[in-house]
Amino acid sequence: MEFNKSYYAVIFTSVRTEGNHGYSEMARIMEDTAKGQPGFIGVESARNDIGITVSYWESKEAITAWKKNSEHLIAQRKGQKDWYKWYKVRICKVEREYDFGSL
Amino acid sequence: MEFNKSYYAVIFTSVRTEGNHGYSEMARIMEDTAKGQPGFIGVESARNDIGITVSYWESKEAITAWKKNSEHLIAQRKGQKDWYKWYKVRICKVEREYDFGSL
Repeated sequence: MEFNKSYYAVIFTSVRTEGNHGYSEMARIMEDTAKGQPGFIGVESARNDIGITVSYWESKEAITAWKKNSEHLIAQRKGQKDWYKWYKVRICKVEREYDFGSL
Repeated sequence: MEFNKSYYAVIFTSVRTEGNHGYSEMARIMEDTAKGQPGFIGVESARNDIGITVSYWESKEAITAWKKNSEHLIAQRKGQKDWYKWYKVRICKVEREYDFGSL
């Protein structure tokens, strides 16, 4: 399927620290909060040695608002250095997509 | 770290079929082939219920060449329907990035 309406993807790649340090609760709150943000489209996530979470958004403004909100949530808690050894965030414009099969 | 040089990401999200059907060998060949393609920058991959593989490329032309090459490789073998119930490919322009920590 080709498409005409552009949207944005945030690729979040990370390597966790050892132990939980409240990570699971935080991840759940972050996901619930993202889903309630204006302009949120969806999220996909998988983790082995590295974790990849891709969230999809209607606009760059929606991403900026989500970033501000999530930084505030993190600041209220332990902070990123307890959960992550490393992470990288890429903000991308989806220019083309196609799919195969069905779920 | 902010950056000025734009590049592209291909987000490949998939749900596998049951069984291997030569998938592991294929995945290895595909990865080796990608790494040998002009314009290849890197690849990150994780799988739980869904798999997410993100490959990074210098240009859209490099992605087009890789797509043609990978379709040819798949056609020589069993084909995507044996390996995947569903997949989605998104071709994206990376507009901004930042990272935290080190590996």
